[in-house]
Amino acid sequence: MPDKSSLEVILTPNLLPLYPLQGKVVVVIDVLRATTTMTVALDQGATKVIPVESIEECLSYKDKPDHILAGERGGQKVEGFSYGNSPFEYMDGVVKGKTLVLTTTNGTRAIKMSSDAKEILIGGFLNFSALTRWLLNESTDTVLLCSGWRDKFNLEDTIFAGAIINHLKEYFLVDSDSAFAAEKLYLNSRRNMLHYMKQSSHYKRLAKFGVVNDIKYCLRPDLTNVVPILKDGALVRADISKDMI
Amino acid sequence: MPDKSSLEVILTPNLLPLYPLQGKVVVVIDVLRATTTMTVALDQGATKVIPVESIEECLSYKDKPDHILAGERGGQKVEGFSYGNSPFEYMDGVVKGKTLVLTTTNGTRAIKMSSDAKEILIGGFLNFSALTRWLLNESTDTVLLCSGWRDKFNLEDTIFAGAIINHLKEYFLVDSDSAFAAEKLYLNSRRNMLHYMKQSSHYKRLAKFGVVNDIKYCLRPDLTNVVPILKDGALVRADISKDMI
Repeated sequence: MPDKSSLEVILTPNLLPLYPLQGKVVVVIDVLRATTTMTVALDQGATKVIPVESIEECLSYKDKPDHILAGERGGQKVEGFSYGNSPFEYMDGVVKGKTLVLTTTNGTRAIKMSSDAKEILIGGFLNFSALTRWLLNESTDTVLLCSGWRDKFNLEDTIFAGAIINHLKEYFLVDSDSAFAAEKLYLNSRRNMLHYMKQSSHYKRLAKFGVVNDIKYCLRPDLTNVVPILKDGALVRADISKDMI
Repeated sequence: MPDKSSLEVILTPNLLPLYPLQGKVVVVIDVLRATTTMTVALDQGATKVIPVESIEECLSYKDKPDHILAGERGGQKVEGFSYGNSPFEYMDGVVKGKTLVLTTTNGTRAIKMSSDAKEILIGGFLNFSALTRWLLNESTDTVLLCSGWRDKFNLEDTIFAGAIINHLKEYFLVDSDSAFAAEKLYLNSRRNMLHYMKQSSHYKRLAKFGVVNDIKYCLRPDLTNVVPILKDGALVRADISKDMI
């Protein structure tokens, strides 16, 4: 029986330099809403999702056929863009067979910052079971990276990381205060997660923009088996073998 | 009625650049054990406590009369030093009328990193009530800085910050996910804090060194009214007016 692989939680991207990523799997978490929306796009038939850091980089794709450009900053759609960061924008067949190019405040940046990792995956409540099965099947040292809000700690990403810790801790070596705290916060929240989330700063921010339905959607578990994985700079569906489902 | 002052929690010193400190009160928290030990030294009659960052800087005081040099790294006394970071080392009258020069892994560094602040105070469970009274009396924008462990999140400092949030939140503007999470973790822990702390990485580290009694002492509330405050590079007793006690 080999030693267990490690499972760690990084509470904000600002703490990334403290965690070497080489050889590890990184799960980027931006539950409200980037990683949820990316997963929805692939679930709805997008060929791939290209996460880009800047508005300018996003606009550089504008003349490419079958590319949909989407931009969000500060929780709102960027002026001049037809698409933003709401999962509901990608459910009516618009992304089928197309490439989504997306830039968001926190999530896309966290993906870029993880480039040293062996594999980069994307997680949210909607693909929780498929994601955790993939991680268990891989059993490599794994880092759960909370995207936070402008480099500060946020509640929703931490709680999702805590849900993964709670689910996988018996199969991995979990030995950090951040993992312990994330799991405790998840256990606190799970009876009524929406109520708990109402305390979070990003809930309040998004609620002001009238997108409470987005939040409710982002908290719904196991809507899809799609697990986005980064290949050559774009997120595509990870191979999920039948025996993993 | 003026607007309330803000009360924030910084989970590790690595996140300090995200929080401007100018004009604010900073409470540096390193419960296990630096800020507890500093408070004990002043309570036991030390004239002042000079927090220094490096072993070399500490040793530069060695020929000064009435100076006691103390050094800790990685949870253990530094070789060649007679004194370390245990509060019990300072209870037998050795510091009375003397200056303690102390360097520790995390706490003394966090103090140095807070130099932009208007005032820097030191907190631990042993001076919880006196400290919170001082903060309430001052009613200035306040930042609770958890010293963490080598820039990573730690549980014990977060829980202590959460205790302060829980006690003062009705008098301050508290509106951040880190404050919310810290308070929840405190509320989780308070029924049996020692048991809860046993999950923390620093408990395990210190327990290996056989200093569980230190940990128990560091979790005992309200042993003193001494609130250390930084003046001209040294910690001295803050003025506590009688009506604050």
